[in-house]
Amino acid sequence: MDLDAFRRAAHTTVDWMADYLRDLGERRVVASVAPGDVRRQLPNEPPREGVPFDRIRSDLDAIILPGMTHWGHPGFFGYFPANHSPPSILAEMVVAAMGAQCMSWQTSPAATELEQVVMEWLRQMLGLPAGFTGVIQDYASTATLVALVTARDQIRGPIDRATVYVSPESHSSVAKGARLAGFRPELVRVVPVDDRYALRADALAAMIAADRVEGLVPAAVVATLGTTSSTAFDPLPAIGPIARDAGAWLHVDAAFAGSAAIVPELAWILDGIEQADSLVFNPHKWLLVNHDCSVYFVRHPERLLRSFGSSAEYLKTQYDSSVVNYRDWGIPLGRRFRALKLWFVIRSYGVAGLQAMIREHVRLGALFAGWVDADPDFVLAAPAPVGLVCFRWAPGAGGPTGEALDDANRLLLERINAPGDLFLTHTVLSGRFVIRLALGHESTTESVVRHVWDRVRTAARDLA
Amino acid sequence: MDLDAFRRAAHTTVDWMADYLRDLGERRVVASVAPGDVRRQLPNEPPREGVPFDRIRSDLDAIILPGMTHWGHPGFFGYFPANHSPPSILAEMVVAAMGAQCMSWQTSPAATELEQVVMEWLRQMLGLPAGFTGVIQDYASTATLVALVTARDQIRGPIDRATVYVSPESHSSVAKGARLAGFRPELVRVVPVDDRYALRADALAAMIAADRVEGLVPAAVVATLGTTSSTAFDPLPAIGPIARDAGAWLHVDAAFAGSAAIVPELAWILDGIEQADSLVFNPHKWLLVNHDCSVYFVRHPERLLRSFGSSAEYLKTQYDSSVVNYRDWGIPLGRRFRALKLWFVIRSYGVAGLQAMIREHVRLGALFAGWVDADPDFVLAAPAPVGLVCFRWAPGAGGPTGEALDDANRLLLERINAPGDLFLTHTVLSGRFVIRLALGHESTTESVVRHVWDRVRTAARDLA
Repeated sequence: MDLDAFRRAAHTTVDWMADYLRDLGERRVVASVAPGDVRRQLPNEPPREGVPFDRIRSDLDAIILPGMTHWGHPGFFGYFPANHSPPSILAEMVVAAMGAQCMSWQTSPAATELEQVVMEWLRQMLGLPAGFTGVIQDYASTATLVALVTARDQIRGPIDRATVYVSPESHSSVAKGARLAGFRPELVRVVPVDDRYALRADALAAMIAADRVEGLVPAAVVATLGTTSSTAFDPLPAIGPIARDAGAWLHVDAAFAGSAAIVPELAWILDGIEQADSLVFNPHKWLLVNHDCSVYFVRHPERLLRSFGSSAEYLKTQYDSSVVNYRDWGIPLGRRFRALKLWFVIRSYGVAGLQAMIREHVRLGALFAGWVDADPDFVLAAPAPVGLVCFRWAPGAGGPTGEALDDANRLLLERINAPGDLFLTHTVLSGRFVIRLALGHESTTESVVRHVWDRVRTAARDLA
Repeated sequence: MDLDAFRRAAHTTVDWMADYLRDLGERRVVASVAPGDVRRQLPNEPPREGVPFDRIRSDLDAIILPGMTHWGHPGFFGYFPANHSPPSILAEMVVAAMGAQCMSWQTSPAATELEQVVMEWLRQMLGLPAGFTGVIQDYASTATLVALVTARDQIRGPIDRATVYVSPESHSSVAKGARLAGFRPELVRVVPVDDRYALRADALAAMIAADRVEGLVPAAVVATLGTTSSTAFDPLPAIGPIARDAGAWLHVDAAFAGSAAIVPELAWILDGIEQADSLVFNPHKWLLVNHDCSVYFVRHPERLLRSFGSSAEYLKTQYDSSVVNYRDWGIPLGRRFRALKLWFVIRSYGVAGLQAMIREHVRLGALFAGWVDADPDFVLAAPAPVGLVCFRWAPGAGGPTGEALDDANRLLLERINAPGDLFLTHTVLSGRFVIRLALGHESTTESVVRHVWDRVRTAARDLA
């Protein structure tokens, strides 16, 4: 494909993209395909000769698109959002055309320095203390692994005596990261939570004390600000001193909720953060940036560098002593130019624009939670402070209870999702099946949220 | 930015992209900026209010672009290529607009199944045995860490008795990966190489035998097919049985050269691969796919899953027992839809088109190596079988020797790069400074390669 052909194909692709975004609401959120349906439409052998781009795009429409789950659909309320926005998409286009590999300052000075600038912007936006330094990672799972490896490398003595403290509500990547970092699974201690699903600081202190009596070495405490199941907030102000006294690395996972700290009245979210050694949050979840774009802040970059720095003759440049080489700040050597989409998005919306969006989502979450709370047939399954609402159908007198009620909620979720215009997912809290409504897309409006609630009640009535 | 504004901005961005690619050759390959030059043009505080997109794009042109190193520039011969191509860029555009998060089959069935299909295509293209199963990772460094963690999890006994065998020519990510996986640095054994910089199988066997006598446990052997410094090929057919007899995981790093195995007369590159447990190669280096796109093949997916599988209630879907959930095949939970660019590229060029490109690069590398070899003032520093040529200026009688000759070559490289239309990098082989010419971009033609050789000789004459 020569450049003229590329220009033509790219213009038609832009129309494809804009049409896709415009018509998204008319598609099913989740593909109605069965396992194997897509695969069997594709040849099992690679093509010997190339085909014109039109042919590829028509196959994209005919085979791939019907098999996609549309994360940007206005009816997508599953998991947490994987965000995007017009300026972020434009940045991805520019990045793709440049194709720069930004491992070292020299291999793209502007990419490194723009990353330093937007990390500083985000530090100020979140209200983090001046000592925190940020770097872009791909996903929070990776950043958490990075934190746990760094924590492991701080301890004296063998790893098979080292403990990590987590909550049963910690993200799955925390236990996985501890395992990958080489901690013994039985020394990953699960600290009990309170009735709001927040880690109990008193229980943490007691477990650490008991472990130290046994000669075990506390390596890390992972606190979550906004858990995945229900956005519970572990009590960081109380956890900080406990971790510090134990000599343990304090890693904070604020993957989803961290973004909300840019709103002054929600700054409480990060209370106690000055005691953390590291923090991860995902602009790709709630700041309109395309994934992957996870931001990892550390208080002691030199410790990160000691664990993740690497060198080789063929990587050396004359600038190495005077610049940041982000290849030393994470796992992979190679790096995409991810700072550009943060820059495009923050400049397009301004801090005020992003704050307004988050405020609106929090308002809509509270509105929905209020409807749930006011309806005698429904219960809120957990506090809903930041745009994630966990609820259950609980029709009360004469209605199902126990496992039957779980099954009824499972069925209710199926009915809510069945027409294909909405997609909510579930979790389990206190052993009970719970439906989750996760807000956070730019497209989310009050009328969509009202439509969800109407569907929930109608589906429940039909089931009753 | 509403959708109409996005459509307009995206069309102008396409023209920006096509103009950028068209005029790339007129820019300096490497930015002529000093550390801090870009940063000081950017505000230290985030903007309160948003600005129109035109303003952002004019700052992109004025501030960012002059600070970029242009990896797609026709004069870029540094490191290994970070490739891209028109169909790959088009795929990145589509992916950015969809923004799908492809962690699970359900979260985008088509993304999972297309990944299965293109992995199978690549398996056939490389001539790998039928038992190999592929998954896309971001970079080879990550895939190597994944291999070493999996290897670690196979051994019985404590990790502080486990050994890993590497070559001094292994990529920096191998030693780093071993360290991150928790292996003791002193138990990462560096096996000597022969005069072609290939790992000596006899030395490997002897070191393993000696370690076993000491009660150490061989966990992994990492063989490189095409080292970063000089594309040396470790003797896989000889290494395989040694690793197997020792019960060690055999990981093969073919990050750059692996792509060449799609050409029948270069299929020897992967000789012995049927004995490997895992293999990584990067389509983003030599198959015209935008990074990140590293492909990791394993012979025993169940072992990978045992180390990397994870679950949580909120991730469960009704399909989990009957589908592949790629979130369990690597470190991060989140996943971009990277299969699409492989599909666009393989279909656009066809296997024949990709083979023709690699054949041409190999021919040009041999041509350049021939010129070096025929010139009495230059020497080839290593065999150059696959498009990477390592050479030194060695003017002979009366010329500099030893460290002075290293300095002369360092200066020569500076002179080659000084005009800004070419960019070559260096390495050290046998303790000597060596200049590397790395081919592999679609834009690489015989006339550019001739231009490099003319520059090399002219610069050397000026220095003499």
